[in-house]
Amino acid sequence: MTSTPWRGFASDNYAGIHPEVLEAIARVNEGHQVAYGDDDITAELTEAMRGQFGPAAEVYPVFNGTGANVVALQAMTKRWEAVVCSTSAHINVDEGGAPEHGGGLKLWTVPTPDGKLTPDLIDTQAWGFGDVHRAQPGVVTITQSTELGTLYTADEIAAITDHAHGLGLTVHLDGARISNAAASLGIDFREFTTDVGVDVVSFGGTKNGAMLSEAVVVLNPDAAPGVPYLRKTSMQLASKMRFVSAQLLALLTDDLWLRNARHSNAMARQLEGRVRNIEGVTVVRPVQANAVFAVLPADVTARLQERFRFYTWDQTTGEVRWMCSWDTTADDVDAFADAVAEEMAAAR
Amino acid sequence: MTSTPWRGFASDNYAGIHPEVLEAIARVNEGHQVAYGDDDITAELTEAMRGQFGPAAEVYPVFNGTGANVVALQAMTKRWEAVVCSTSAHINVDEGGAPEHGGGLKLWTVPTPDGKLTPDLIDTQAWGFGDVHRAQPGVVTITQSTELGTLYTADEIAAITDHAHGLGLTVHLDGARISNAAASLGIDFREFTTDVGVDVVSFGGTKNGAMLSEAVVVLNPDAAPGVPYLRKTSMQLASKMRFVSAQLLALLTDDLWLRNARHSNAMARQLEGRVRNIEGVTVVRPVQANAVFAVLPADVTARLQERFRFYTWDQTTGEVRWMCSWDTTADDVDAFADAVAEEMAAAR
Amino acid sequence: MTSTPWRGFASDNYAGIHPEVLEAIARVNEGHQVAYGDDDITAELTEAMRGQFGPAAEVYPVFNGTGANVVALQAMTKRWEAVVCSTSAHINVDEGGAPEHGGGLKLWTVPTPDGKLTPDLIDTQAWGFGDVHRAQPGVVTITQSTELGTLYTADEIAAITDHAHGLGLTVHLDGARISNAAASLGIDFREFTTDVGVDVVSFGGTKNGAMLSEAVVVLNPDAAPGVPYLRKTSMQLASKMRFVSAQLLALLTDDLWLRNARHSNAMARQLEGRVRNIEGVTVVRPVQANAVFAVLPADVTARLQERFRFYTWDQTTGEVRWMCSWDTTADDVDAFADAVAEEMAAAR
Amino acid sequence: MTSTPWRGFASDNYAGIHPEVLEAIARVNEGHQVAYGDDDITAELTEAMRGQFGPAAEVYPVFNGTGANVVALQAMTKRWEAVVCSTSAHINVDEGGAPEHGGGLKLWTVPTPDGKLTPDLIDTQAWGFGDVHRAQPGVVTITQSTELGTLYTADEIAAITDHAHGLGLTVHLDGARISNAAASLGIDFREFTTDVGVDVVSFGGTKNGAMLSEAVVVLNPDAAPGVPYLRKTSMQLASKMRFVSAQLLALLTDDLWLRNARHSNAMARQLEGRVRNIEGVTVVRPVQANAVFAVLPADVTARLQERFRFYTWDQTTGEVRWMCSWDTTADDVDAFADAVAEEMAAAR
Repeated sequence: MTSTPWRGFASDNYAGIHPEVLEAIARVNEGHQVAYGDDDITAELTEAMRGQFGPAAEVYPVFNGTGANVVALQAMTKRWEAVVCSTSAHINVDEGGAPEHGGGLKLWTVPTPDGKLTPDLIDTQAWGFGDVHRAQPGVVTITQSTELGTLYTADEIAAITDHAHGLGLTVHLDGARISNAAASLGIDFREFTTDVGVDVVSFGGTKNGAMLSEAVVVLNPDAAPGVPYLRKTSMQLASKMRFVSAQLLALLTDDLWLRNARHSNAMARQLEGRVRNIEGVTVVRPVQANAVFAVLPADVTARLQERFRFYTWDQTTGEVRWMCSWDTTADDVDAFADAVAEEMAAAR
Repeated sequence: MTSTPWRGFASDNYAGIHPEVLEAIARVNEGHQVAYGDDDITAELTEAMRGQFGPAAEVYPVFNGTGANVVALQAMTKRWEAVVCSTSAHINVDEGGAPEHGGGLKLWTVPTPDGKLTPDLIDTQAWGFGDVHRAQPGVVTITQSTELGTLYTADEIAAITDHAHGLGLTVHLDGARISNAAASLGIDFREFTTDVGVDVVSFGGTKNGAMLSEAVVVLNPDAAPGVPYLRKTSMQLASKMRFVSAQLLALLTDDLWLRNARHSNAMARQLEGRVRNIEGVTVVRPVQANAVFAVLPADVTARLQERFRFYTWDQTTGEVRWMCSWDTTADDVDAFADAVAEEMAAAR
Repeated sequence: MTSTPWRGFASDNYAGIHPEVLEAIARVNEGHQVAYGDDDITAELTEAMRGQFGPAAEVYPVFNGTGANVVALQAMTKRWEAVVCSTSAHINVDEGGAPEHGGGLKLWTVPTPDGKLTPDLIDTQAWGFGDVHRAQPGVVTITQSTELGTLYTADEIAAITDHAHGLGLTVHLDGARISNAAASLGIDFREFTTDVGVDVVSFGGTKNGAMLSEAVVVLNPDAAPGVPYLRKTSMQLASKMRFVSAQLLALLTDDLWLRNARHSNAMARQLEGRVRNIEGVTVVRPVQANAVFAVLPADVTARLQERFRFYTWDQTTGEVRWMCSWDTTADDVDAFADAVAEEMAAAR
Repeated sequence: MTSTPWRGFASDNYAGIHPEVLEAIARVNEGHQVAYGDDDITAELTEAMRGQFGPAAEVYPVFNGTGANVVALQAMTKRWEAVVCSTSAHINVDEGGAPEHGGGLKLWTVPTPDGKLTPDLIDTQAWGFGDVHRAQPGVVTITQSTELGTLYTADEIAAITDHAHGLGLTVHLDGARISNAAASLGIDFREFTTDVGVDVVSFGGTKNGAMLSEAVVVLNPDAAPGVPYLRKTSMQLASKMRFVSAQLLALLTDDLWLRNARHSNAMARQLEGRVRNIEGVTVVRPVQANAVFAVLPADVTARLQERFRFYTWDQTTGEVRWMCSWDTTADDVDAFADAVAEEMAAAR
């Protein structure tokens, strides 16, 4: 069993476990604990999360981000309700149809320029209330930071929740990279969630240094009944829960979440700073979290991908995604930026 | 973050991670690995599993046992097919309705005396082929070792697979405790699975010393198309897969699976040996794996549960379950048996 | 296009449309009507149903009995809840798995001697509240008259609803043959539904002389939110609704429902009276509605089935079902009873 | 029970039953027939449909168009596959989420200018094969005539089926108004379905003069296994099937389908001819079937709707839909066109 130590810019899911998280797993590995969440560590995690999101928060650790989203959205909808989301939302494009398959959820998708919904954009799908022919809009979901590396300000989220609540919809926030968002905005989690009316959060730990650990964090219990049951029926209930909870708890301890997120964000900004001066490379989206989206010639991309792993995001435009993670080093960035410069030069 | 080191007899899910498994997780935590299963460790696991189950085996690690079962059973059924199982099967009584909810699967349940199906018992539900009013039996699922601590011999399983295949049904084996079964039978996994016609196995790691790791092991690929997709739509696809695979790989290394299973089985037999001589305690099922089922007076049970955690299995009969795990010690067993004796004596 | 005019005892679904129902369809076939239920005839039906079930009743016509049941049970359950029913219930054995497939509903089945649940029998499955591992019992469903031709008295239903409500469950009544029940009991519909606490009824019209028309009748709106939406998502919303509604309205006009039901019940009693004196034929269940269940030798059954259509109900016991319908004549019964006597005599 | 004889331009679902269809229902109402489709009339219908679609066609009558579509699409997809459709497709916008809810089907939607897919448009969603993160495209569905009153030529459909089959996808045709399409194109059904590679058709009868009757017509049985079972699990199996089949059979007798469709198409063309000369009214789509889409001032629309029922199709643009049906008369059209002219004049 070996793991050759290479690093790339493909995904924050390619990175390993932060040492403090691994240590936490080891630390709670003593004797027995009640299974399925009635353990001491999960209780401690709940308190820690309440410290972040407020005293009413309910915390349900799950295995992965798709699981968190599908559990949350089922809890937030009646059997006949639908979900308004960006066309580029992870639940629409990258979950293999899990929301429809596992939850029977229809997605009302909205094209956006930058992955971000607005009240006006929501209105393009949030209509037809009371019309049985139209799957009833029940929830708006937004992603923070978005799948395109962009951020909502707290005010932008407040505008969305005000509007959605006014229409009778609740608001879910897919926070697979919520730590990157908070670090970049320089504010607490609750300032762009609890305090501005978000009802439920999918809190991401895996991409930020955990092994596998996410949580459904219910901020408004009225908006999401039945999460304990839906977590089980959605096959997201860990038996040895203490080890899932310990990971998130480690991230919330000594601001590990913030250290990791600040670091990956900084690496992305460093990378952007380096590549934006390379002729032929265009950074095409604001770098607000830990991703850099750029357009460069297809042949250059192909040669670069032989040296470093990363994904082409859009075949038709040649847009690529470079993702930094908690373990990306400044040297990694420099080596990669050097390689971009070399391959661009060679292509000329 | 603390974990007070107590131990009980409630569940093998209450135990922690075996040190060799934890060490394996740490060992693969170097650099990047491709996410979602295209990593070196998962490839190595596949080879190791093929060593156990034969060269045609396909291996799909998942998060938990309910996930393994629901993914496997969906892959093994057409949209309109149903599953024949024991009434006491985990998928029927302990998965919160996940097969029905997540997979739309109807369960045709069969009462059994000991948790074990037979060809004759299967026939009580495997009928009505071609009748659209009857959900079409498509799969038989058996549990090895069963939820009642009993075992199928390889011959008994062969009789079931022969019969099921003759009817056009395939056979799934829920192996949440498959290691306990193999250890107790003293044969290889393949002797009671691949070699006797089982089509798909849910291979359990968590109860036998892993943190959280199970796998859908497809022995007959024709019987279970689409597992990679269904694993995703069922929210059972880990992003940082290497860490899930490493756990199972550790269990398959140096026969850790066998050492752990033999140990917990031995502890159960030791416990049975001690309690069967205590007046007023009746061991009510054969102790063939790592569980002891006994009937004792309700007031004794209540007092014992103040001292040690374990579950009452059937309120109406007073039957309790005492489960041993990889970390149960001989001293634990003695202390518990002493307590049983004391409380029984006090009750007289 | 022809229909050779034979009659048998296979099913009340084999009978055609009562002339008064057909006439009603023709009568409402003038000009346009708003589609999907906002028509004059559906409004009139609602008033007529309220005359039967009380002023709070909400009425949702659907296409068939399976549709009525699955719509009703979805409306009555949260996403994670399950249904307690008799093992012999139509939803369990004759709907092809539609409740599980279309609604994700787990059925907690209860073996019964006569197709009837009781508070005690309900208790064998209505437990485990709050335990996420157990699909949460949410609804009890009973069938009136039952699939075995038996009846609940109003008091028996009251005992069930009291008990169920005390546990936090609601009660659904599958009334595919509700008219036969009311006719046989000699009481109004509401006396064994609304007045004794039934929450939702599947009201059957098809078997009692309609072409195809059933309705979900909600007696307690709090118990079944969202029926209009679920009727659509369950593909049970007729566009030209007026013709579905007109059929039920015809049955409720001039007591056609009662005339038809009394007649088919009387035919069943006549048949029972004739066959119970034939040596070798045993009527094995009380004849309380329009079905006669009897045991006779398999070879006699086979020869009889060459002359008259009817179903063998249980291959293992030789039990057959003889069903009378609104169009069964006294001569039909006599001819059939004569045939039974002949074939039994020939077999001796 | 009354039905005031008014007529409007809201929907072909507002019209009643054509007399020849009603007569057919009455004609088959003699004696008993085997339930659930094993009756003489359904057999006769199958032969008649094979006369239209070719000898390999399998015919499954269902209750309504949503039912036909959801049954067909489930049969055509594996559990993990998705459906490519126009954003304006009925399955996306007007079925209340039934495909997602009842079938777990994800829809990959494609914006189109005129409701029609093309190979190039299909390619915008038919990609990502083998990627478990992307719900696998399995079927392309097109509507003929479209929801916007436009038509595919046989060649256009051939191009779609060639392209789809080349990608490994099958092709479904939603023929809720298939008769209008055939009548307008002046060709047989099979020329734009069977002969050009369409795999499955939802054949519509209701909008063309039936009471309620549609059918899943399987042209390529390999592409749609299990329809008999899925029809039952989707609650679309009529017990007294003969009456559903008789309706479609009546439409196929003496070319009633064609007479009705030609008439409603002609009425739409007459209406278009009248209104296109009214100043201020713009007919915005080709009138190729029985619908006219026009833009006119909102206040004129409002006043017109007080006199005749019809739907506003798009609030933002003021586009309205005027639908003609088999019972629309030339006088109806003239009266309505006069009213349009009057209200437009009054508005100036």
